[in-house]
Amino acid sequence: MSEEIRVKNTGLRGVTVADSAISFIDGEKGILIYRGYRIEDLADRSSFMETVYLLLFGVLPTAEHLEAFIRQVKDMRRVPDYVFDSMRCWPKDARPMDVLQACVPLLAMAEEQSDTMDRQVCVNRSIGLIAQMPTLVAAWHRIRNGQPVLEPDPELDHAANFLWMLQGKKPDPATAKDLDVCLILHADHTFNASTFAAREVVSTRASLYAGVAAGLGALSGSLHGGANAKVMEMLLQLEHEPDIAGWVTAQLAKGNRIMGMGHAIYKTGDPRAVYLKKMGQRLGEQTGGKWAAISEEVEATAVAVFASQGKTTILPNVDFNSAPVYYLMGIPMDLMTPIFAISRVAGWCAHIIEEQFADAQGKPALYRPQAQYVGEYCGLMGCEYSPMEKRK
Amino acid sequence: MSEEIRVKNTGLRGVTVADSAISFIDGEKGILIYRGYRIEDLADRSSFMETVYLLLFGVLPTAEHLEAFIRQVKDMRRVPDYVFDSMRCWPKDARPMDVLQACVPLLAMAEEQSDTMDRQVCVNRSIGLIAQMPTLVAAWHRIRNGQPVLEPDPELDHAANFLWMLQGKKPDPATAKDLDVCLILHADHTFNASTFAAREVVSTRASLYAGVAAGLGALSGSLHGGANAKVMEMLLQLEHEPDIAGWVTAQLAKGNRIMGMGHAIYKTGDPRAVYLKKMGQRLGEQTGGKWAAISEEVEATAVAVFASQGKTTILPNVDFNSAPVYYLMGIPMDLMTPIFAISRVAGWCAHIIEEQFADAQGKPALYRPQAQYVGEYCGLMGCEYSPMEKRK
Repeated sequence: MSEEIRVKNTGLRGVTVADSAISFIDGEKGILIYRGYRIEDLADRSSFMETVYLLLFGVLPTAEHLEAFIRQVKDMRRVPDYVFDSMRCWPKDARPMDVLQACVPLLAMAEEQSDTMDRQVCVNRSIGLIAQMPTLVAAWHRIRNGQPVLEPDPELDHAANFLWMLQGKKPDPATAKDLDVCLILHADHTFNASTFAAREVVSTRASLYAGVAAGLGALSGSLHGGANAKVMEMLLQLEHEPDIAGWVTAQLAKGNRIMGMGHAIYKTGDPRAVYLKKMGQRLGEQTGGKWAAISEEVEATAVAVFASQGKTTILPNVDFNSAPVYYLMGIPMDLMTPIFAISRVAGWCAHIIEEQFADAQGKPALYRPQAQYVGEYCGLMGCEYSPMEKRK
Repeated sequence: MSEEIRVKNTGLRGVTVADSAISFIDGEKGILIYRGYRIEDLADRSSFMETVYLLLFGVLPTAEHLEAFIRQVKDMRRVPDYVFDSMRCWPKDARPMDVLQACVPLLAMAEEQSDTMDRQVCVNRSIGLIAQMPTLVAAWHRIRNGQPVLEPDPELDHAANFLWMLQGKKPDPATAKDLDVCLILHADHTFNASTFAAREVVSTRASLYAGVAAGLGALSGSLHGGANAKVMEMLLQLEHEPDIAGWVTAQLAKGNRIMGMGHAIYKTGDPRAVYLKKMGQRLGEQTGGKWAAISEEVEATAVAVFASQGKTTILPNVDFNSAPVYYLMGIPMDLMTPIFAISRVAGWCAHIIEEQFADAQGKPALYRPQAQYVGEYCGLMGCEYSPMEKRK
């Protein structure tokens, strides 16, 4: 082992822990690419299914391969009945992210050997999880509302089918297309906290399901995927606020966070946020424009305050601009993070496969960092146990 | 941010990522301490409940505090009925570690705000999870076997009550005491893979439950907690093997791993393994001695082969010697890793609380490392999207 490296309490920022061929961020230029393709191109010209294929297999599919892949995903949308039976036992006010984190190990139970190290099996299970995630989110929403669970519709593509299973009516094509683009934009983002958690868990040779469940746990945090719902809470709170700029300034003066502002990597803007802002403006124009206007004022004020403090790199992130888009689509607030999961599960699975089946040369090791012990040494490393009668 | 640090594919071995006051390992001397106390002293003179108190609160309890703590744990052993109702929906052959990973988010559902950042609430929930983990393991075992779930017995201490709920008969005190010691020995181990996963997940401000569920996922891996069951599979396979030394030598010559041998940190022996070996020998003498004898021959042969290759640091780890101990207690093989979880949940909770509520000075940041991108740049960072008709 080489000399010790100390990167304490930095959250491993700037520490390169592995090779990866899945995605790349240029934080200075505001560029995000998946497997070599810019997300703007994928958002404009591709589809979520094509993007998933790209993430899992590393190349854009031919028409024939894409058709077969879409068929495979559609065939795998159903989940076993015991998952729905279990959901019917759960408290109706359970957080949807807790529901998802419970459901993924439930899906593992359907497999004979959930922790297999067979690559092809893991790829197929990945496709299954990607296919099933919308089914889980929609089913939970309907069960908690006392509505019947709806069958997936093989005529509808991934995003449209999710909206159908959730809302019980076929969405208009423009809304379905917008959601599909949102799914493309959220599908991967290098070694973010949830992806790193997923990779870390499977580095022990735990199952794909165990890794995805860990990813869901990390995504649920309000500093990660949980942020989009928090952004929407803020926007709703500001709906009737006469002085938005004053409110933002006061929050920042109190040292409070403005949810959805700032990113660990992007220093000149988050390309996903830029894309989504345009979508939000367009949707806003069609529906009255309120949220786009409030968002813009929050953004302009916060950016100006930060700039006055010399913090010119704190700009809106993906969550800031996805929240009003989902809201305008009629998505309940507590399903905004689950929609992030419907997309990001593709990235997690691609990363898990890369972690578990990388070439021998660059084979990743089980993650096992160190901590600096700052605790007690009772009796100077003699560590003498004190009998109970001597304790105070 | 300071200059970039590259520690690729090393699993962060030797990289210090945080301060921690919970446990300390001296890998050269073979020492493990919890909050200042050597595990041998705790194993000889303490109890699992006292050790849990120590891990959570940082000091050994007075008699009064310990009594109150034990009462609190006993009062929290029950789990909501919907957990058992859900279990009854699940495939009977589900892996118990998948069951546990599903159950922890189910417990989160009972809480109004599962991701609260209130320290006292998180401490109480930790005590609840530690109290409930044996109930979950025992209940699943009985449900999968078509047996009624048993009520926890407030007369019995933590280990004895688990054996009662599992086996439906009160264990003899010596067996309960041995299991209690096993729980002490497994309760914490600095930044191992599952603890790091738990900390990483809650660094996003995800819930305690989300962190513990991630820890369970990592623990299930065969390179981590899953190893004890694999060791027992090996021992059973060798039960009628006339030439154990020959078998071990042949395995190693083929490049296969001998499960339970070697550790990332300990270079002169794992103190837990040393302790458990003695327990295994004693239990072995009482029950015929077969497993202790087989273990010793596997160990002696493997250590000699490794030493002949200059690898003098590959020695038995905790899993090598816990497996035959659990087997002799009548624990089914697939519950060996869950027993590890019954113990380690104490460490995970202590670490989660440390991660989420550390002093502002050393406040850990969300874990977000980097990867070196080794993938494609289509069109030299222009990343040109290729229309489908041009793809091959």
